[in-house]
Amino acid sequence: MEATADTTPAYRIAVDCMGGDRGPAEIVLGAKLALRDIGPEDTLILVGKEDKLRQLARKAGLGGNPRIQFRNATEIVTMEDKPMAFRSKKDASMVVALDMLKSGEADTMMSVGNTKVLVAASTLKLGRMSGAERPALAAIMPHCKGHFVLMDVGANPETTPGQLMHNAVMGTVYAQSVLRLHKPRLGLLTVGTEEGKGGERISRTHDLLKRLDGSLINYVGPVEGFDMFDGSLDVVVVDGFTGNILLKTVEGMFSMLVGMVRKCVGWNPLYWAGAAALLPLGVDIKRHLKPDKNGGAPLLGLKALVMKSHGSANRHAIRGTLRLGREALMHRMAAKLRDALASANALTGETVSPASAPTVPVGDSSAPSAPTA
Amino acid sequence: MEATADTTPAYRIAVDCMGGDRGPAEIVLGAKLALRDIGPEDTLILVGKEDKLRQLARKAGLGGNPRIQFRNATEIVTMEDKPMAFRSKKDASMVVALDMLKSGEADTMMSVGNTKVLVAASTLKLGRMSGAERPALAAIMPHCKGHFVLMDVGANPETTPGQLMHNAVMGTVYAQSVLRLHKPRLGLLTVGTEEGKGGERISRTHDLLKRLDGSLINYVGPVEGFDMFDGSLDVVVVDGFTGNILLKTVEGMFSMLVGMVRKCVGWNPLYWAGAAALLPLGVDIKRHLKPDKNGGAPLLGLKALVMKSHGSANRHAIRGTLRLGREALMHRMAAKLRDALASANALTGETVSPASAPTVPVGDSSAPSAPTA
Repeated sequence: MEATADTTPAYRIAVDCMGGDRGPAEIVLGAKLALRDIGPEDTLILVGKEDKLRQLARKAGLGGNPRIQFRNATEIVTMEDKPMAFRSKKDASMVVALDMLKSGEADTMMSVGNTKVLVAASTLKLGRMSGAERPALAAIMPHCKGHFVLMDVGANPETTPGQLMHNAVMGTVYAQSVLRLHKPRLGLLTVGTEEGKGGERISRTHDLLKRLDGSLINYVGPVEGFDMFDGSLDVVVVDGFTGNILLKTVEGMFSMLVGMVRKCVGWNPLYWAGAAALLPLGVDIKRHLKPDKNGGAPLLGLKALVMKSHGSANRHAIRGTLRLGREALMHRMAAKLRDALASANALTGETVSPASAPTVPVGDSSAPSAPTA
Repeated sequence: MEATADTTPAYRIAVDCMGGDRGPAEIVLGAKLALRDIGPEDTLILVGKEDKLRQLARKAGLGGNPRIQFRNATEIVTMEDKPMAFRSKKDASMVVALDMLKSGEADTMMSVGNTKVLVAASTLKLGRMSGAERPALAAIMPHCKGHFVLMDVGANPETTPGQLMHNAVMGTVYAQSVLRLHKPRLGLLTVGTEEGKGGERISRTHDLLKRLDGSLINYVGPVEGFDMFDGSLDVVVVDGFTGNILLKTVEGMFSMLVGMVRKCVGWNPLYWAGAAALLPLGVDIKRHLKPDKNGGAPLLGLKALVMKSHGSANRHAIRGTLRLGREALMHRMAAKLRDALASANALTGETVSPASAPTVPVGDSSAPSAPTA
């Protein structure tokens, strides 16, 4: 599923075109934009209702383009579906794309669909990466000088110290690959920076991270919410419950600010000239904060690479997600993740729970577990 | 400690003047501003190094003002002190102010000092309110149409379902008192709005809240991070770990935005005119988002009212905190909180842990517990 040769091979990327808020047309347009970023030999395989997708591709000027292929899938995973829905919806576009990844017909897949179904289906279909206990979603967020990796943003709401340690290691490898940092500075997000603050989970995680500091990670220590945005951190580790709420809070706060500015400017003609003068500034700041370029989040810790983009992702975010996915393949991230996890487990004496332990923490305790790679 | 007569009595408010980032001068200036808001018979008792405070008061034009009194305290709780530091620093301004509250010499106290020491000292010195298990900090946050109460923002990092339920009830009473809402709309913050999402703690809390809906609270249901800012909620309940991180994230993000705008405008003369034209808009938005007026957070669930303001609070935030504290006294909030907690416990069958259970969850497990009122 991953290239090991030194020359860049041709990658096949399965694109789940259904289940997003904006419909398949936006995803097809995102795929079109992505053709500019990915390699000339790479293929995008659009998965969904084939007739419709072929029609949308023609409309987008992609008719007959050999780099765009199609795979029919008759069903759709909806936002209302429960985690285990992938079992009954065997011909849903998300499920078909995952099956292609599993069988080796694709090197990575991306979806904008229902996160909890994607996490459950990916975990159970692909299986965990050797050395990892649970998959985690790694988002790229803006800080005042650039960007940082925040993980987990929602794959695993009840993260244990061992899993937080795995996330620190995986987040470091991811930041090295996509943010191109040599020694990403890593912080453990908590409620106070004194040792012992934040409860038992944080204390134990802190101890594990200290043992990896200097070799596998560059551990700054416990950090607080305001430390994330001052440019002093490249990777921030937190449990999936808090991380998901954080991601959505930042999103909600940003929308509120944009809405407030629009509303106030709209009311007051005196502001119009000023707003016009400042428009490029607004566009600059918006571009930095709404990281369409980095809009996707990989689900790290599985045997193959699954990329998630926001349910409301536009074509630019789709393009960014596909670019991130290809970069991860190109940097041979999977091999680096496996090596780093093995070293981390050896250094800390952490044992990964056997295949019989539950691995799908998305609210369906009846889910069976996936085998460990 | 609380007025029950129908006429507004004279309140005595102890002000811990030490331990803030800006020093006692700023707090004395905040007290001066607060004299405009509080009742003409009310007294502010400045607690700290008396010589210094008298000098600062004279400088602020408060010399001889009968509404300003002084209480000497020779020590200071620092930001580095551990939770139990109040035991050895018996003559610290924070500790003396709490002792005044305990003995009835003051009706409420406020501090900008070390939160974890304040939570531990308040809990152990004052004791829990009847029906409450743990104190919680209730912050007032901006949304696009006004403000909402977020709690707990850090008093109790590991909040149980019963404690989250108590926080919902206390947050509702607080919003009724200070936001003057009849039926505050309450949401339980989690990672997905489907029932069963977010883990066992959220499911159990959701069940408890449903039982109180319509009588003690107006429960909207589970909500996500972006729901907080669209003006559809008046009270948001979350565990103290996530709540504290959220509060500081919003703070950090706001600072980043202000910094980005300043830096970009500073670089580019073309932006200066636009920025000048938009200055009133910026001031409006900043006033709404930096809620100095509502800058303080009460520590709810104790036998007496303790108000916390930010360590870096300026004079306006100090004024706002003192105003909130007085409003809470005036609305006889303590009696309402006790009644609501008793009804909630009766309706849900929740039993409050006995006095022997630990009550100070601030990283010092050796702390003895406080008696229940």
